[in-house]
Amino acid sequence: MKVLTTYNTLLEDAIQQENLPLGPANLYDPLRYFLQLSGKRMRPMLSLMACKLYDTDFQKALPAALCVEYFHNFSLIHDDIMDAAPLRRGQQTVHIKWNPNIAILSGDVLLVKAYGLLAKYDAQIFKALFDIFNKTAIEVCEGQQMDMDFELRQEVSEAEYIEMIRLKTSVLLGCALQMGGIVGKAGSENEALLYEFGEQLGLAFQIQDDLLDLYGESAQVGKQIGGDVLANKKTLLSIHAKKVATTEAMLALNTTEKLENPLEKIEQTQKLYSKLGAKLYCEEKMALHHSKALTALEKIESTQSKHDLQELAEFLFARTH
Amino acid sequence: MKVLTTYNTLLEDAIQQENLPLGPANLYDPLRYFLQLSGKRMRPMLSLMACKLYDTDFQKALPAALCVEYFHNFSLIHDDIMDAAPLRRGQQTVHIKWNPNIAILSGDVLLVKAYGLLAKYDAQIFKALFDIFNKTAIEVCEGQQMDMDFELRQEVSEAEYIEMIRLKTSVLLGCALQMGGIVGKAGSENEALLYEFGEQLGLAFQIQDDLLDLYGESAQVGKQIGGDVLANKKTLLSIHAKKVATTEAMLALNTTEKLENPLEKIEQTQKLYSKLGAKLYCEEKMALHHSKALTALEKIESTQSKHDLQELAEFLFARTH
Repeated sequence: MKVLTTYNTLLEDAIQQENLPLGPANLYDPLRYFLQLSGKRMRPMLSLMACKLYDTDFQKALPAALCVEYFHNFSLIHDDIMDAAPLRRGQQTVHIKWNPNIAILSGDVLLVKAYGLLAKYDAQIFKALFDIFNKTAIEVCEGQQMDMDFELRQEVSEAEYIEMIRLKTSVLLGCALQMGGIVGKAGSENEALLYEFGEQLGLAFQIQDDLLDLYGESAQVGKQIGGDVLANKKTLLSIHAKKVATTEAMLALNTTEKLENPLEKIEQTQKLYSKLGAKLYCEEKMALHHSKALTALEKIESTQSKHDLQELAEFLFARTH
Repeated sequence: MKVLTTYNTLLEDAIQQENLPLGPANLYDPLRYFLQLSGKRMRPMLSLMACKLYDTDFQKALPAALCVEYFHNFSLIHDDIMDAAPLRRGQQTVHIKWNPNIAILSGDVLLVKAYGLLAKYDAQIFKALFDIFNKTAIEVCEGQQMDMDFELRQEVSEAEYIEMIRLKTSVLLGCALQMGGIVGKAGSENEALLYEFGEQLGLAFQIQDDLLDLYGESAQVGKQIGGDVLANKKTLLSIHAKKVATTEAMLALNTTEKLENPLEKIEQTQKLYSKLGAKLYCEEKMALHHSKALTALEKIESTQSKHDLQELAEFLFARTH
C-alpha cells in the first residue's frame, strides 16, 4: 500500500535522526537494536495521519508520533521480560540478547525519552499532549497487569476481557490519533472523535488477532497459528465458547484442552468454537467495533481528505478477507 | 531535629492523600506498601525547603516534591530487582514480596505517576519543571547503568566513579531543589545555585556513605558495616587505595580481598586504606564537596531565611562527627 510506505519511510528516517546517545552503550545499544526491528509503525502513522487532516505540514506531528512509538517499544521490551518471550519480530528480545537488568533499565530510559519528545512543543500544546499521553500510559500499565492477573484466574468475563484489551492495546491507538489532532489543532470535539476512532479500531484489531491466531492461514498471518490455543490463553473466542457451552460441550472443551498433539488440539478447537458459534460471535463483535470506528471517522470534521485514515482502516482488516 | 519532623509529617500526609487507585491490586498494592516504608524523605523535603526560600506558602511545592519522591521510589523498586536485594529499609523488597514482573510493572506506573504530579501546575511552570525532571530522569538511568557496568570492570578511574555517583545520586537532589525554586519563582540564577547546592551535597553525601560503610559504627549507621568490602564493591576508598598503592601494598590489597573471615577482612581493609591515605583522601573530598555546597547556598538570594536548608545540610553530615 503506497500511501503507508510514504509515512513509513518518513518515520524510519525520523527514528534514525533521533540519535540516541552512544553511551552508556549497554543502555542505548539495546534501544537502537530494538527500535530498528521496525514493526508496522502503525501507531506513529496514526498521529501523522490525524495531524494531516488539518495541516498539510503534518511533519510537525513527528515528535508526538515518535513519543507514541517510543512508548510502545518501551512497553514491548518490558512485556517481553514478563512473558519470558525469546523472540520479537523474529529477532532476539532485549532481555535475551543482553540480560533482564539491561532490558528493565533501557526500557525505563525509553519511557523517559518518550516523554522528552513532547517537550519539543510549546507550553500549551505540550500540556495538552502530556495530559492524554500520561493518562494513556497509566492505562496501558493497568491493562498489562490485568492481562497477567487473568492468566492465573479460572474465569474471566467478556466485559473484563474487553476492558483489558481496551487498556492494553486500544487506548494507545486513540492516544496516537488524538495527539496528532492536538498538534493539527483539530479542536476538542474532533480530538475526541479521533480518539474514539482509534479506540474502536484497536478493539476490532485485537479481536481480529484472536480470530486470526486460530482461523488465519499461517502464510497470511506471518506466524504459526494456534499459539493461543496451545498456551491455553484466554481470548474472546475461548471466553464466549465457555459461556455458551452446554454441559456436554463443556466436557468436549475440557477434553480438547488436554490434547497433547498440537495439530489435533488446534483442529478440534477450531471445530468446537465454530460449532458453538464463538467464531461467528467474534466476527460480529469485530465488525461492530470496526463499524463504530468508521462512524467516528465519518463524524470528524477536517479541512483535508480523510482518505489515508480510511485506507489504513481498510488495510488493517484486509488480513481477514 | 524538629524542623525536619514538621516537613516529614507534611510529606507523609501528602503521600497518604494521593490515594493511588485500588485496582488492579497487584499494580497498586506494591506501591502503597513501598511508599509507606518511608525513608528520610530527604529529596521531597529539599523541594519544600527551596520553595520556602521565596514563598511562605511552600505547600504549593508539594506536587513537585512528591514527583521527586515517586521517582526515587520507582528507581529503588527497579534497582532492587537488578541488585537482587531481598530487603529495603528492613522490609521485603517488592520483587520478593510479590514477584519480579509485578515489581517491573508497578515501578513503571510509579514513574508515570511521578510525571503526572507535575501536570498539577499551570503550563509555564509545568514546562520548566518537566524539563529539569526529564533531564534528571535520563541521567539517573545512565548512572545506574554505569554502576552495573563498573561491577564487571577491572579498573574504574576516580573521575568515572565520581561521574557515576553524580548521575545516580546527586542530580536528583539538585533537581529536587531546583524544582522547589521553580515553584517559588526563584529566578534562573538562584535556581542554578539551588541545583549546584544539591549536586555538591549529593556528592559529599555519597562519599560519606562510602566512608561510613567501612569506618562507621554499626549503631550509628543503622546497619552492619563493611558491606562494600565484603562484596568487593568499588568505592572512592578502594579506587584511591589502588591508585596510590606501591607494588607491595597492591599485594597486600589483593591478599586482603581474598580473606574469607569477614571480620578479619573488614579490619585488614580498614587498616590498609588508612595506611594508604585513602580514608583521609575521602574525608577531604567529602569536606570539599560539602564546602562547595555551602558556598552555593550562601550565594543564593532569597526573600526568606535559609535556616532550614543550612540545618538539613548540617544534619546530614552529623553522621560522621
